Amino acid sequence: MILFLILFCICFLFSYEELEKGEIKGLFRKFYEGKISNLELKVLKSYFESLNLPVEDYIRLYTKGLLLEKQGKLKEAIETYLRSIELNPYYNPSYYRFNFLIRKVKNRELYRERIRKILEKRFKEAPPILIENPENHYVFLVEKMSQYLFIFKGKELEGMYPVTTGMNIGDKEREGDGKTPEGIYYFTRFIPPKKLSEIYGGVAVAINYPNPYDKLIGKTGSGIWLHGSNEEDRNKLPFSTRGCVVAQTYTLKTEIVPKIKLSNTLIGIYKVIPKELKTEDVKKFILSWKEAWERKDLNKFISFYSKHFTWKGGGLKEWKAYKRRTILSKKFIKVDISNLSILAFSKMGDENPRYYLVEFYQRYESDSYSDEGVKRMYVVREDGKLKILSEEFIMKK
Amino acid sequence: MILFLILFCICFLFSYEELEKGEIKGLFRKFYEGKISNLELKVLKSYFESLNLPVEDYIRLYTKGLLLEKQGKLKEAIETYLRSIELNPYYNPSYYRFNFLIRKVKNRELYRERIRKILEKRFKEAPPILIENPENHYVFLVEKMSQYLFIFKGKELEGMYPVTTGMNIGDKEREGDGKTPEGIYYFTRFIPPKKLSEIYGGVAVAINYPNPYDKLIGKTGSGIWLHGSNEEDRNKLPFSTRGCVVAQTYTLKTEIVPKIKLSNTLIGIYKVIPKELKTEDVKKFILSWKEAWERKDLNKFISFYSKHFTWKGGGLKEWKAYKRRTILSKKFIKVDISNLSILAFSKMGDENPRYYLVEFYQRYESDSYSDEGVKRMYVVREDGKLKILSEEFIMKK
Repeated sequence: MILFLILFCICFLFSYEELEKGEIKGLFRKFYEGKISNLELKVLKSYFESLNLPVEDYIRLYTKGLLLEKQGKLKEAIETYLRSIELNPYYNPSYYRFNFLIRKVKNRELYRERIRKILEKRFKEAPPILIENPENHYVFLVEKMSQYLFIFKGKELEGMYPVTTGMNIGDKEREGDGKTPEGIYYFTRFIPPKKLSEIYGGVAVAINYPNPYDKLIGKTGSGIWLHGSNEEDRNKLPFSTRGCVVAQTYTLKTEIVPKIKLSNTLIGIYKVIPKELKTEDVKKFILSWKEAWERKDLNKFISFYSKHFTWKGGGLKEWKAYKRRTILSKKFIKVDISNLSILAFSKMGDENPRYYLVEFYQRYESDSYSDEGVKRMYVVREDGKLKILSEEFIMKK
Repeated sequence: MILFLILFCICFLFSYEELEKGEIKGLFRKFYEGKISNLELKVLKSYFESLNLPVEDYIRLYTKGLLLEKQGKLKEAIETYLRSIELNPYYNPSYYRFNFLIRKVKNRELYRERIRKILEKRFKEAPPILIENPENHYVFLVEKMSQYLFIFKGKELEGMYPVTTGMNIGDKEREGDGKTPEGIYYFTRFIPPKKLSEIYGGVAVAINYPNPYDKLIGKTGSGIWLHGSNEEDRNKLPFSTRGCVVAQTYTLKTEIVPKIKLSNTLIGIYKVIPKELKTEDVKKFILSWKEAWERKDLNKFISFYSKHFTWKGGGLKEWKAYKRRTILSKKFIKVDISNLSILAFSKMGDENPRYYLVEFYQRYESDSYSDEGVKRMYVVREDGKLKILSEEFIMKK
């Protein structure tokens, strides 16, 4: 039996059938399965040599970092990844390796600071996902690859804070997967400190995860908070939560949370905040919607809504019935929109946003009824056209 | 539904999770599955750049040949493989690509000839598998990678003939697999031309496939012949039989078959006839066996046989009983051995042969009985020692 096994192994190791058949692809399988021979490795090397594929230095540095990691040279690897990030501040693999590695070294707060300069440069101008934002409104942007929270006032970067997010890579899909959701949200409530377990460091703010878009694509889970910790510098240990975003407790209490207004502070969580994105003219879309409403053009007005539309009263059918009643009974309708915020959400590699979160202050006036308050809409693309996926209105009391 | 699929694909294509986790291996899987991105290809390229692995020119030429093939530049690819073979005349992948490609071009006989010079140089000295061969005996060696039959007289190369073998790559394992067996054999009979279908061109010689070693490791099939064809230059189309070895009909009749003696012409079929091989001292083994026999040391004599031993009378047990009777009843035994041939069989990458075929002329003399004839043995290694796996004796009439 052993004889047979040995024969089999030898046959297998030295068959080179892939090479004889000219099937380079098979070598990749063998490499993956750990069965590749030295000769086959050389063939792969010469295969890549022959590829007309210029390799950028940030990629070379990344690969060098991997080899240094393998050799156990952690600090050198970290420095190498930093240089890679300097050359391409959007290259997520180097950020991830950097953040995973600093978990293993002392003085990681120093490394966390060293990346700050690169990020400041990146956000000298507001990223394309931040389409509209009133000058006195704050927008929170969390980037998972850099493990930083960026706070913009209007369209200016106002502050940068090291944070830590979910221990598992990727967008949250379901309860308990240890991932931080990627999406655009608003803050829903400040958790009363008395109700908090001590592990939260006495400060926690909830966001509306899962949002209507998340629900549409089947994401589950709950209790995603921005919070503190009773462990000092907990936020300096990248990728270590069960899905929440954790910032430094003192800064959270004194600098970050004071900027949050439940009525007008949006928060976007991205793997990578993109450098470029082709965004639609959402502002124009909103103004057309307003116009149709004011013109009491019910069909036109309803055409702005997605077939998946949800609101507190149900779906599109209920909305249509409700609007038929309220619009057609009016003699005139006047809608005023101000303080418009538009945030776009995209994932890596997307050319266009996946959806938008729109927020504005709405003053509604008609012959029989008037109100005002904050309106929020999630807007998606459906058959190539923008459509409102959800709408809510928080009336000013 | 389509929306979901698109989302899924985009997520998948641009996740770069392997890069973030620093798992280069995962990229090989993605390449194999055809899911690799340009960025990931670049990482692989820089990974190979960073490997301290000098690549020989014959490998570079091989890879270049593959790319030329892909571009449909067949003749350039063929020339490139030839140059690769010139640099390393033992590099089977280039031989295989060469032989597969010349199937697709005109004037393939010219290409078949061009490889001849390389092979002549290779066999200026007898290969290590040809351990012993009397000066006036022929040995046939078929090499699948080069698709050539080499005829040695004694230990000198006497002739080289383009042949074609099984259409499928690899050693024959079972009936109908379209593969030519790799092993060492002897010719068993000339098939009478009258009994041959016309497709054989009127000439066919059978070999003893499967031999005792083949049977031991479970190989099946039958009817492996060296034969001709009614199609002209059929032998010039590499890898095109169902398992037989086909040579040019006229040459077969006039030059090749006349050299075959059923009593003393061995034939070895190899994927690659190796350049180097650590062979055992089989001659000494045979002489010790003869000595034990002559000394009538039954236990010693039997110890030369494998536990898997087979002969026309059965297995080792029957052999022992038979030898006990015939050896112990004699007053003296004298055995004379002459015309010893020893052929070794190995597969690619083997350091040692897998087994040997031994043939000699034996004159046996004792007080009560004498005979002479051809003896053939298959010899294997068992627990590190040479053992006789099978033995047959063709008595001179």
